[in-house]
Amino acid sequence: MNYSIIFKIIGWIIQLEGIFFLPPALTGFLFGETKDAVVYLILATLCIVLGGLIRMRKTVKTTFYAKEGFVTVALSWIIMSAVGALPFVLTGDIPSYPDALFEIISGLTTTGSSILTNVEALSHANLFWRSFSHWIGGMGVLVFMLAILPMTGGSTMNLMKAESPGPSVGKLVPKMQRTAFLLYAIYFVMTIITVIFLLCGGMSLFESLCHAFGAAGTGGFGIKNDSLAGYSTYLQNVITVSMFLFGVNFSFYYYLLIRKVKDAFCMEEVRWYFFIFLGAVALITVSLVAEGGAVGESIQTVAFQVASVMTTTGYATADFNLWPAVSRGIMVVLMFIGACAGSTGGGIKVSRIMIYLKQVRKELMQQIHPKRIRVLKMDGKALDSTVVHSCNTLLMAYVLIFIVSLLLICLDGFDMTTNFTSIAATLNNIGPGLNVVGPTGNFSEFSTLSKFVLMFDMLAGRLEIIPMMVLFHPGTWKK
Amino acid sequence: MNYSIIFKIIGWIIQLEGIFFLPPALTGFLFGETKDAVVYLILATLCIVLGGLIRMRKTVKTTFYAKEGFVTVALSWIIMSAVGALPFVLTGDIPSYPDALFEIISGLTTTGSSILTNVEALSHANLFWRSFSHWIGGMGVLVFMLAILPMTGGSTMNLMKAESPGPSVGKLVPKMQRTAFLLYAIYFVMTIITVIFLLCGGMSLFESLCHAFGAAGTGGFGIKNDSLAGYSTYLQNVITVSMFLFGVNFSFYYYLLIRKVKDAFCMEEVRWYFFIFLGAVALITVSLVAEGGAVGESIQTVAFQVASVMTTTGYATADFNLWPAVSRGIMVVLMFIGACAGSTGGGIKVSRIMIYLKQVRKELMQQIHPKRIRVLKMDGKALDSTVVHSCNTLLMAYVLIFIVSLLLICLDGFDMTTNFTSIAATLNNIGPGLNVVGPTGNFSEFSTLSKFVLMFDMLAGRLEIIPMMVLFHPGTWKK
Repeated sequence: MNYSIIFKIIGWIIQLEGIFFLPPALTGFLFGETKDAVVYLILATLCIVLGGLIRMRKTVKTTFYAKEGFVTVALSWIIMSAVGALPFVLTGDIPSYPDALFEIISGLTTTGSSILTNVEALSHANLFWRSFSHWIGGMGVLVFMLAILPMTGGSTMNLMKAESPGPSVGKLVPKMQRTAFLLYAIYFVMTIITVIFLLCGGMSLFESLCHAFGAAGTGGFGIKNDSLAGYSTYLQNVITVSMFLFGVNFSFYYYLLIRKVKDAFCMEEVRWYFFIFLGAVALITVSLVAEGGAVGESIQTVAFQVASVMTTTGYATADFNLWPAVSRGIMVVLMFIGACAGSTGGGIKVSRIMIYLKQVRKELMQQIHPKRIRVLKMDGKALDSTVVHSCNTLLMAYVLIFIVSLLLICLDGFDMTTNFTSIAATLNNIGPGLNVVGPTGNFSEFSTLSKFVLMFDMLAGRLEIIPMMVLFHPGTWKK
Repeated sequence: MNYSIIFKIIGWIIQLEGIFFLPPALTGFLFGETKDAVVYLILATLCIVLGGLIRMRKTVKTTFYAKEGFVTVALSWIIMSAVGALPFVLTGDIPSYPDALFEIISGLTTTGSSILTNVEALSHANLFWRSFSHWIGGMGVLVFMLAILPMTGGSTMNLMKAESPGPSVGKLVPKMQRTAFLLYAIYFVMTIITVIFLLCGGMSLFESLCHAFGAAGTGGFGIKNDSLAGYSTYLQNVITVSMFLFGVNFSFYYYLLIRKVKDAFCMEEVRWYFFIFLGAVALITVSLVAEGGAVGESIQTVAFQVASVMTTTGYATADFNLWPAVSRGIMVVLMFIGACAGSTGGGIKVSRIMIYLKQVRKELMQQIHPKRIRVLKMDGKALDSTVVHSCNTLLMAYVLIFIVSLLLICLDGFDMTTNFTSIAATLNNIGPGLNVVGPTGNFSEFSTLSKFVLMFDMLAGRLEIIPMMVLFHPGTWKK
């Protein structure tokens, strides 16, 4: 294990977090919350100094393998969360440290599950930090680091591989560093556009920023107790479109940027994503209209909720807990499918689902015509067997973590639907589940043990399991 | 597609079913149910004549591929069910044909889910046929055919592959025919032993036979409305041991027979099966004792229920619907794991679960030590990559069928736990689920559409999905 380079990167991450504390500090000052602003300022200073000290250690070797990549990424996220929870505790808004940790892990992993029963009691600084954490976690803080810092060698590849969601790294250009920069550029511009559209609808700058961060990172923390239900139809629609677009594979936007429009629209994953979205909206709308809902209003509400759950954002304008059983069933399935790989969304990812289905079809055709040779293809290119294999083991690891987590939180004695959807909502980084943890409920009633299980699941979900498993495997730390 | 040989085999199957109608006919005569006995006798005669006519067609080619194997097995099961449902309708005990079909598919697939609210109203002949269908389906009717009929060539292999549960065919000896014979011999003797033990506990011969059939086939149809709750502790314990033993891979018994005791106890799958059973019993007993249950009684009750669910039998002596949430959670997990491959039990099978876990561990170790070469092993031998691959695609096909089925039965508007466990109980061939379909409930309240979905799931579960998918895939029938 190359400890020196791990320390170096973690030093950078802590310093970056110090810088990220500055916008909430500013927010505090602007809204006259001096105490909170000072807390953020002090923490920012401490982080920048401390991170610098950690980073001082001399790098002995520059070799950096996949193992170090996974460990660094998993550790970085845990440390970021541990530090990021401090302002909530120190300002007194969330006095319990485990609760604050739950909240910030939920923020950084863009889950959006909350332990707060009254969000509106938080200071503006804390609300800003909560939403801002979605934006930071959405595209990944290590990817951000790669985008702005000069780093060399294979190291960058292994970091990016461990932090980016999806079956294979979305390399836009051969150089990793440039890819990271391009991703953040697209991300930044799209966020700004969302803010502008929200401002046009009469939202204040503060509210626009918070909601845009939540939509861009596909997080879902709102700043009102009723999430987005109290806003105008225009604003809700802006958020619907925004959530949907941030769930698209970012390669799509890159192709558009370099004017390869045909390549963009030929992306199989994006097309499936689009059709799954349309199909789900159509089916659920029909079920609501059948129960007496108005067509236009139903489409608008359903599109919002489907975009929210499919992109694993978790904003709500309606309580889908009250929908017909078949619609709730579709919502639960969407929770697992998730958004595109290479987007800020969570879940298993559309492209993995495609790879699973294609394998089933291949196996079936193999039985029917045993002599014909078949190749698994995506976007017209043959799929690498390593990619297919790691997709398969991810599914198994996913099921395994799901089952163990489920048994552990069963100890709290809630009903099966609550237990099942709590794990689904955290492991897929969505936010709300059904029943106790439904769109109008929250996670505060769980025991501390269950909260830690769910925190692990959120991190495992965001980092796609393997980094967390490598970090906690004894074999990693053996000489 | 080699139609002539398919017709030939289906002819045999119908004739065999005719012979299987004779024991219930005899039961009817013995209990003075002349009308029912005559119905069974007439059906037996018709089947033997009709099957003979179908079989008359000359076999043109003897080539027989995997595709024909799957189609033949899937078709045989559907036809057997269609015919097997007739006595229920004609005797008037289950007047609705779809309900009768549900009942017999549940019987043949050894599921044990019932649409009957009052089992005790059935005639003895029908009760016998219901339980006997478990015994026929448990080891497989095509395997039975292979054991007793002279057939040659690769055809037998492809039939056995399609009907036998587990990742690879449990070939005991190089010759398929001899393997089939040995399997049925072990099966037959073990059933007789169970009957003797039950007779010793004071059960009547009729009751002993019915319960032994249910335990041997890991089916679960009882002949009382309260399943086995009304019987003595001794009888319940006999059934516990019997269910557990029929869930063991039959290769284990073969090794014992040929005195390779060491090989028998070195079988990894059997050891895991044993430890999972013990672990589940221990955990659930603790949870019941913590709520005030007596230790001895709890162990006895829990062992019965765990053996019943893990071997996917479905007998009940207690309503586990009322157990603490964590125990219910463990029961649901056991439902999916299922019994050993090469046993009469259903579920995903212990050996597949092992293959999945071994793959996750291998992937993890690959990331930690990328240079070391690793081989997936089972019982000390390297696993064939085709076996691993088909295990993986089975998991995906399984999830796919699960989701589609879940959405379809959601239309009935029951709660999520009922919906989820209905599919789990039928696709894994268990019998009871939770809530509406719990140990004290039944499947009668579902709509006809849902019943057909569940019938498909029972067949798909028993035949391990691929044969049913091949049968219904248009590609199979294209020239």
